[in-house]
Amino acid sequence: MKKPKLSHYDDSGAVSMVDVSAKPVSSRSAIARAYVAMPPDVIAALPHNKKGDPLEVARIAGISAAKKTADLIPLCHQLPLSHVAVEFRLDAGGIEITATARTVAQTGVEMEAMTAVSIAALTIYDMTKALNKAIEIREIHLLEKTGGKSGTFRRKSMSSAK
Amino acid sequence: MKKPKLSHYDDSGAVSMVDVSAKPVSSRSAIARAYVAMPPDVIAALPHNKKGDPLEVARIAGISAAKKTADLIPLCHQLPLSHVAVEFRLDAGGIEITATARTVAQTGVEMEAMTAVSIAALTIYDMTKALNKAIEIREIHLLEKTGGKSGTFRRKSMSSAK
Amino acid sequence: MKKPKLSHYDDSGAVSMVDVSAKPVSSRSAIARAYVAMPPDVIAALPHNKKGDPLEVARIAGISAAKKTADLIPLCHQLPLSHVAVEFRLDAGGIEITATARTVAQTGVEMEAMTAVSIAALTIYDMTKALNKAIEIREIHLLEKTGGKSGTFRRKSMSSAK
Amino acid sequence: MKKPKLSHYDDSGAVSMVDVSAKPVSSRSAIARAYVAMPPDVIAALPHNKKGDPLEVARIAGISAAKKTADLIPLCHQLPLSHVAVEFRLDAGGIEITATARTVAQTGVEMEAMTAVSIAALTIYDMTKALNKAIEIREIHLLEKTGGKSGTFRRKSMSSAK
Amino acid sequence: MKKPKLSHYDDSGAVSMVDVSAKPVSSRSAIARAYVAMPPDVIAALPHNKKGDPLEVARIAGISAAKKTADLIPLCHQLPLSHVAVEFRLDAGGIEITATARTVAQTGVEMEAMTAVSIAALTIYDMTKALNKAIEIREIHLLEKTGGKSGTFRRKSMSSAK
Amino acid sequence: MKKPKLSHYDDSGAVSMVDVSAKPVSSRSAIARAYVAMPPDVIAALPHNKKGDPLEVARIAGISAAKKTADLIPLCHQLPLSHVAVEFRLDAGGIEITATARTVAQTGVEMEAMTAVSIAALTIYDMTKALNKAIEIREIHLLEKTGGKSGTFRRKSMSSAK
Repeated sequence: MKKPKLSHYDDSGAVSMVDVSAKPVSSRSAIARAYVAMPPDVIAALPHNKKGDPLEVARIAGISAAKKTADLIPLCHQLPLSHVAVEFRLDAGGIEITATARTVAQTGVEMEAMTAVSIAALTIYDMTKALNKAIEIREIHLLEKTGGKSGTFRRKSMSSAK
Repeated sequence: MKKPKLSHYDDSGAVSMVDVSAKPVSSRSAIARAYVAMPPDVIAALPHNKKGDPLEVARIAGISAAKKTADLIPLCHQLPLSHVAVEFRLDAGGIEITATARTVAQTGVEMEAMTAVSIAALTIYDMTKALNKAIEIREIHLLEKTGGKSGTFRRKSMSSAK
Repeated sequence: MKKPKLSHYDDSGAVSMVDVSAKPVSSRSAIARAYVAMPPDVIAALPHNKKGDPLEVARIAGISAAKKTADLIPLCHQLPLSHVAVEFRLDAGGIEITATARTVAQTGVEMEAMTAVSIAALTIYDMTKALNKAIEIREIHLLEKTGGKSGTFRRKSMSSAK
Repeated sequence: MKKPKLSHYDDSGAVSMVDVSAKPVSSRSAIARAYVAMPPDVIAALPHNKKGDPLEVARIAGISAAKKTADLIPLCHQLPLSHVAVEFRLDAGGIEITATARTVAQTGVEMEAMTAVSIAALTIYDMTKALNKAIEIREIHLLEKTGGKSGTFRRKSMSSAK
Repeated sequence: MKKPKLSHYDDSGAVSMVDVSAKPVSSRSAIARAYVAMPPDVIAALPHNKKGDPLEVARIAGISAAKKTADLIPLCHQLPLSHVAVEFRLDAGGIEITATARTVAQTGVEMEAMTAVSIAALTIYDMTKALNKAIEIREIHLLEKTGGKSGTFRRKSMSSAK
Repeated sequence: MKKPKLSHYDDSGAVSMVDVSAKPVSSRSAIARAYVAMPPDVIAALPHNKKGDPLEVARIAGISAAKKTADLIPLCHQLPLSHVAVEFRLDAGGIEITATARTVAQTGVEMEAMTAVSIAALTIYDMTKALNKAIEIREIHLLEKTGGKSGTFRRKSMSSAK
């Protein structure tokens, strides 16, 4: 069995954008999640803005960032995204962010979904930081991944998820 | 006393890049932190790469991303950064990332430091995800901020930190 | 019959980069047009520059901008353009700009052609504004579009063009 | 009297990013305007979206684009913008867009305000084009400019505005 | 026989991003080379840095730059790179850099490989320039190219290589 | 005497964007040079294009690239350039390119001038490569640098230029 190894390294041990030329083009998707923890008074302040809801600004920022993933993550391949969506769910402790990315390509869109939730979360932080500088971004992880040779992944817990 | 409100809104309730023309130029700094939680076998795999240590790739990615902050966060001002550094500390559960940003400008560098740790963390995720897809980015927050009208902030806990 | 609706919205009413994964790859083109209105003395000043004709600078700016469309228009898909050309025609009142864009992809290139003429027009404005600040960019619209499910469009007038 | 000439040319007739090293840093502003003409049924369709109002997406796009001006317009200087705002006004024939930009720098922000209204207009076009492809962007021009050696400009008509 | 002519010109003599819509998608590769000449004391100083080896920083810069080629070279097509690698070889006079780029696309990756070695070389210059400002980048050229209608090219000498 | 060391390293040996917060703002300039060697028939083909002279396209590309330097070279500071010019001189063996960059800032513009000549040279290569793939970019180096603590540098030869 081939032992898993760090990504993006060639046989000499040097980093590279690994060669995916021979991989088939296939339909792929990924869903990532982040959580922005904030105290109740910040959550209460969120809906008081008719124009420019902070979550709508964050949604645009997350979608735009997904398209810049290969410019931000040095060894990521450039991918033509066929779909990006960013969703929010408020609860008593903050805002849960999920992002879905899809492509038809030779490699997957995990990093695109992870980048979308991260930049959406940073944008929410940016728009609420005047209220409380201790707002924290927590638990950025992959929820699901489909397509490609490694097949479908669905997150359980960190230790069991290999 | 002026009540704190969401950032980046004008009096009509619309978002804008707020006017800092009248603010004095001053020396400002910010330190942010992130944590990448990973199981012991992933941590053990990290130092086995002589060329292109994943943490060195992440350091470059974090520094580069700090310079792109205004392009990623819609309402951020463009700032000429006078210093960016990204540091790593390994412990039994993963990697702690801290980033320091400095400028001499009319507004602060919180978002630049927050962006640097976030993209450094995403890069570590990208380079280790083949080993375990459940690696998680946790606790992205501001540790310290100096300069500007609001003065020095040092993080305590979320509830007391306003 | 399916009623036309605003672009880029999902069923919940949220904006997204809509899913084109299931659409077939096909050959598509678009032609857009803009007009830069300028007084006769500005038009007369244009050809007096042997090196760096302002229209040639604008041509490069328009072609380059077409490649940045997905970075400028938040919900646009990234497209590998297979052709971009920008043409100019001087008349007594100013400069007519047309741009042609082509791709072989799952979605169309309208916005790429529209962006090319707009940035070419802004570049002409930038290079002539010292002569007359009242130069105006007028009538940016789509002239023609081919390919895709909606088929060929050729501009008539605004009211009849649905 | 020094005769006005095309911008961005040096004495040999070659284009360059002209030398502003010796110019004093001063406070500068610019206001630009664009108009998106659309038939009544498109205007009627605009407010039917609770999440992601097309005008709010366009506002973010315009503000973000202002920060990219020097990357879009080849001979523009890079400027740290101290303020950008984009406003909309609906009337019976379409949407009027105005953008205000401010800086404290050695050169002015005309192109930043012009770029903001242009990209905001293109974004509105992008979000409404499914309803009517003949929507047209009209009358992009400078309304006002303050600061710098040339002083204040306020638009009258094209011929008298030199 | 069709006489070779300058690239990127249409029949009217204007530059354009030439139309490759009708060209078949095929596998293509290119290898480029650059040399950074530096005196012996600079070469001796290179390996004294445990963290952040200058060559590893240059490798990341070269790979990242390959992905930005269409944004740097005005008439280049955007290409989804399927592989980029940058290699270094030290000798007594300096550092030889080679970059390999691959794609499956309608046009070739010469410029991507050329851009990768150039930016990697500039990064080495940037990191060593405090030691000696006379370090020089030399002999940036294409070593090999495969795929496409023109077939395989392997560099001999300048005069014979047509 | 302080021994010169590699740039961009902190005391722990890690790379960083070094802290220039305490350095005074001063006027700085740099001039860099590159040479594109090409056989006589390629040189003869150059002026046959009325529209879109390849050198004018290269000039725009070089000026635009100077503004992207901090995005290309990982540890470069962002600088507001106050002037960029790119000049060409044809001789019997090819084209000599010189670029001048100026700023009023806390750090110098060497890399901006070096980047401008490099990308201008790559653009000339791109536009002539259909004629002869063996065209070579040679001798990219700094000619002159003024301002800053290290004062004026003028290139002599590599060994004596420290």
